[in-house]
Amino acid sequence: MDINGRVKEMDENGIQVQVLSFTSPGCQACTSAAEGEALAREANNWVYEQCKQNPSRFANLGAVCMIRPEEAAKEAKRCFEELNFVGIILNDYQSVSDEEAPDFAEPSEVDGKRLYYDNKSYDVFFKVLEDAGKPFYCHPRLIQGQFFKSRPWLAASVHGFKIQASHHILALITGGLFDRFPKLQMMFGHMGEGITGDLWRIDHRLDRSRFPTLKMDKQKMVRDYFAENIHITTSGHYSTRMLQAAMAELGADRIQFAIDYPYEDDLKNGSDWIDSCPISEPDRVKIARNNAVKLLRLDQAPWNMSLDASRKELEIGGMTSHVWGYGLSQH
Amino acid sequence: MDINGRVKEMDENGIQVQVLSFTSPGCQACTSAAEGEALAREANNWVYEQCKQNPSRFANLGAVCMIRPEEAAKEAKRCFEELNFVGIILNDYQSVSDEEAPDFAEPSEVDGKRLYYDNKSYDVFFKVLEDAGKPFYCHPRLIQGQFFKSRPWLAASVHGFKIQASHHILALITGGLFDRFPKLQMMFGHMGEGITGDLWRIDHRLDRSRFPTLKMDKQKMVRDYFAENIHITTSGHYSTRMLQAAMAELGADRIQFAIDYPYEDDLKNGSDWIDSCPISEPDRVKIARNNAVKLLRLDQAPWNMSLDASRKELEIGGMTSHVWGYGLSQH
Amino acid sequence: MDINGRVKEMDENGIQVQVLSFTSPGCQACTSAAEGEALAREANNWVYEQCKQNPSRFANLGAVCMIRPEEAAKEAKRCFEELNFVGIILNDYQSVSDEEAPDFAEPSEVDGKRLYYDNKSYDVFFKVLEDAGKPFYCHPRLIQGQFFKSRPWLAASVHGFKIQASHHILALITGGLFDRFPKLQMMFGHMGEGITGDLWRIDHRLDRSRFPTLKMDKQKMVRDYFAENIHITTSGHYSTRMLQAAMAELGADRIQFAIDYPYEDDLKNGSDWIDSCPISEPDRVKIARNNAVKLLRLDQAPWNMSLDASRKELEIGGMTSHVWGYGLSQH
Amino acid sequence: MDINGRVKEMDENGIQVQVLSFTSPGCQACTSAAEGEALAREANNWVYEQCKQNPSRFANLGAVCMIRPEEAAKEAKRCFEELNFVGIILNDYQSVSDEEAPDFAEPSEVDGKRLYYDNKSYDVFFKVLEDAGKPFYCHPRLIQGQFFKSRPWLAASVHGFKIQASHHILALITGGLFDRFPKLQMMFGHMGEGITGDLWRIDHRLDRSRFPTLKMDKQKMVRDYFAENIHITTSGHYSTRMLQAAMAELGADRIQFAIDYPYEDDLKNGSDWIDSCPISEPDRVKIARNNAVKLLRLDQAPWNMSLDASRKELEIGGMTSHVWGYGLSQH
Repeated sequence: MDINGRVKEMDENGIQVQVLSFTSPGCQACTSAAEGEALAREANNWVYEQCKQNPSRFANLGAVCMIRPEEAAKEAKRCFEELNFVGIILNDYQSVSDEEAPDFAEPSEVDGKRLYYDNKSYDVFFKVLEDAGKPFYCHPRLIQGQFFKSRPWLAASVHGFKIQASHHILALITGGLFDRFPKLQMMFGHMGEGITGDLWRIDHRLDRSRFPTLKMDKQKMVRDYFAENIHITTSGHYSTRMLQAAMAELGADRIQFAIDYPYEDDLKNGSDWIDSCPISEPDRVKIARNNAVKLLRLDQAPWNMSLDASRKELEIGGMTSHVWGYGLSQH
Repeated sequence: MDINGRVKEMDENGIQVQVLSFTSPGCQACTSAAEGEALAREANNWVYEQCKQNPSRFANLGAVCMIRPEEAAKEAKRCFEELNFVGIILNDYQSVSDEEAPDFAEPSEVDGKRLYYDNKSYDVFFKVLEDAGKPFYCHPRLIQGQFFKSRPWLAASVHGFKIQASHHILALITGGLFDRFPKLQMMFGHMGEGITGDLWRIDHRLDRSRFPTLKMDKQKMVRDYFAENIHITTSGHYSTRMLQAAMAELGADRIQFAIDYPYEDDLKNGSDWIDSCPISEPDRVKIARNNAVKLLRLDQAPWNMSLDASRKELEIGGMTSHVWGYGLSQH
Repeated sequence: MDINGRVKEMDENGIQVQVLSFTSPGCQACTSAAEGEALAREANNWVYEQCKQNPSRFANLGAVCMIRPEEAAKEAKRCFEELNFVGIILNDYQSVSDEEAPDFAEPSEVDGKRLYYDNKSYDVFFKVLEDAGKPFYCHPRLIQGQFFKSRPWLAASVHGFKIQASHHILALITGGLFDRFPKLQMMFGHMGEGITGDLWRIDHRLDRSRFPTLKMDKQKMVRDYFAENIHITTSGHYSTRMLQAAMAELGADRIQFAIDYPYEDDLKNGSDWIDSCPISEPDRVKIARNNAVKLLRLDQAPWNMSLDASRKELEIGGMTSHVWGYGLSQH
Repeated sequence: MDINGRVKEMDENGIQVQVLSFTSPGCQACTSAAEGEALAREANNWVYEQCKQNPSRFANLGAVCMIRPEEAAKEAKRCFEELNFVGIILNDYQSVSDEEAPDFAEPSEVDGKRLYYDNKSYDVFFKVLEDAGKPFYCHPRLIQGQFFKSRPWLAASVHGFKIQASHHILALITGGLFDRFPKLQMMFGHMGEGITGDLWRIDHRLDRSRFPTLKMDKQKMVRDYFAENIHITTSGHYSTRMLQAAMAELGADRIQFAIDYPYEDDLKNGSDWIDSCPISEPDRVKIARNNAVKLLRLDQAPWNMSLDASRKELEIGGMTSHVWGYGLSQH
């Protein structure tokens, strides 16, 4: 990662802060705990060092290996307290070897044992996040299986990413995570991973009486968690119509502009879109900047950004202060 | 099926024509060809007999077993020529036993061998449809696998239906089916099975250069097929915001009102929604009636419906002539 | 008017046909009948001659003086039968001198006597249009009065145009014009002259019981006329959000792309907008081309345009066949 | 006004607070200063007394006569300091007799001399409002003139209200009022009096170079004032499509639910609409309650409402805490 080149590119595109994270699958593909935990520490330290020279231009999401929840909790805590990271990145499910698989591991038909975070064993981890007031980002991994091997163009960002991620995200919500941690905040990208548009049907069909094992608060709707615990980003989905649909479904306060670098390698493409797409200026400033400042607490040092900038404060010929929400970097 | 009770209920809800079909998984779950083909014939003949007394109030989608494409083609032809059916229902992939599996069968990690219709072996079947000018409807099946066994509330209409169906639908489109049969028309429900909202991203990420085996016309976008070969229905997804989003994405000419009976067992719920949701009256008449009349050719005998009814022709205190597009019936 | 320069500019912006008309206030400002009628004939003949060399690239709206309805009817007839014009332009109300004012003239507080076309005396004129299947376009004039003299920036296209025009348009509709001529078609521009967005409130507040002299069919709503007799254009109002709102209110079949030349003197500005604004491709082709072809019957000679072009037929890198609906020309 | 009956009706419709004001034309129709000022005092005192028994269920907008700006300023001050009123109501322009007309009075072609508040003489009045942090509401008056006398159904809420009000509102904005008082807040109803939908065109056509006398800050757009100084209400305009369009144009933070009583005399009609129209729940709570609480400072005594209630706090079977923004009452 060329940090200086990155700052230059940010300046050219009016991006004030980039949020960096260890890209998919990251630690989630390490099937051994010791290895994964070491990788997380190394990645976190490395990016911390990289950003030292420009601390106010970058914010980081910490990587964690999710095989041992206690260890994940510790590394998250270290990220927040020692490295001033703004949240955690989770690249979908955690793979784990048969040898190290904890008893809550689930068999997968296509790629060995998997760990999903709707299991209560992860409460120790999510408690650290809730207590620190730090969100986590749920990023997709490739979808696996024979069907996609024969049709590889459907396995990744065209289709499979959102499918795999949406399974896990819905498992977290319906598993009661946000009932146990009502202040916890989750982010995910790609304009909602295909879930946002189906909220009505999800709530309409989630028949409490048919599913006694459903863990989610039976008085709540999935929609309620989107109003209190969830933020989506535009990463890699610069569709004005779908941004408008997401705004209609969720309101403008829980949508954040993001690029999806390096999957989207042209900052200008995304930046130009958010600067010019036909949404109202007050909503544009929220989505392109203010919402992220609030959630990630970029009003604190070293960023010291204003919490409620208006379009006028930002503008000298176009929006000049994006928070590039969750451009994912790889090193 | 109580055909008289059904007509009564239709009258009460202003539904002029119901489109009936053999519900999921239907013949697609028969793993033996002979058995599946017999079931298809039986189902088609049975519903034909049932509707004989009220031929102008019902239209039928024919069931077929898809293990032997030639036989599926024959039964489709019989449905059109002898039974005056308006199209074909396909309940997602066809299951098949190891013994009878044709060489294009695909191994599935979770439920034995599967047949997907993007394989060219099915050209003989789709040619019959295109030649007859009859559409097919792609209806979901339950999603399978360990993940969903532990979270059964996600396996069906809440989430899994759309996931499983969207895999197959995208496989058909990107597999070049509509390049080989440019006049063929496909329908699917649930407000687009999660695909409609992601058209921008699908086209944005479908990188032709990375996938040399991609069979779809490389000059076209997935969006183009939605403009020429695809129709979606509102079945089980009475969300006004998502209907509006679908209209923005596809235009109003390729969206059809449908109920999703018996999964939605309250006709009044869906009928009241389409009668009152805040869309323009010209679009309401298209979506609730005219689009289906055109696609299913209900202007012909025995239905003899006008092709372009206006709101005024229909109305005596509310919309009175829905075509209940694709309420699926089970007998 | 430099007809060759105009064709060149059209080619550069992918405009196949321009619809020309005598710009505001045109004959409507002539307060003497003889003078106004002569001007109409002269203007119509002149533009007919101008377009002779490129008959398939232009279509004309005929000018008429509205002081003597019989004469207006005659000139309209001549325009259709001898000059092959596609409709009529009316630049809002007709001014008339005290001497020539017919008995249905109305006193105006600000600029002498005025004639509004909701008076039944004009039935003879509108009958010619309905019989010929030709629409008329209602274009604004400047608003008059002391208030606007002190605030001249509000008098014209910023505000006054739409105000003055909306009075007249609503008078025509509520005056029963379309009840007497149910096939007559009216067009107006600027995304609906401020009326489209208030249809709900207009119908909600149009209290039949309070207004016994209201002439409009009391069984109908103003909205109904927008579904059967009215077309709006985008002239001078390239707002994507408002186009989307108009589509939601009226449906996509009654909205036409137009530029508003010479008030908008940059063809590229409008053409680029309609080519790229985030509406669906099927709707884009309707709005940018097909709707105008149908209404103006440009499928006939000398234009011979296809009635239902698809995006694919038109496209070689962008929309290439706009009908520049109602760019108004002045000579 | 039956204050107890009103509270009962509010309870039945889940309305926590009603905002009351002296209805149109109120003091604005008094052409004599002494008379108008006395009427304002009387009206303000009267409604204050009426609400004394239920101080937390009502909030008042004070009436003022605008003939003598100093006196209007004084009465406004009294309203805020002695009566705890939350803002001021202005029923469009002030009529004034020839005898008492100040030198900035404007001749009107249709109903004598008029006073418009874009004149700088009113700075003394608006300064009181800005200093107190209190907004004013601009409510329409009937439109006058021969044209409307012949078509009375167009003069009031169907059309004329919005026309007359939109003249004045645009005069205030383009007259520089909000440049001189950048914190001043203006409200108006009927979903934006026809202005909201034309913001793009207004800004597009407001040609600074052509109008040297234009007083508004030439670096700003009309749209900017809508983001910083303006709030609209839904009064009498329960159109979901237009609410959606207004949200798209302005964002959800500057739109407030209101009924328009007594012009709309059925509280249930409006309340049911805002409770069920297809907008997101977070936006619904803003529009139906929180936005008004913030602007009108209903977090203070005697209302003591929470500033940021969530849907969950409010809900026991539907929204139960509307602020009935600006239902106008008459006594």
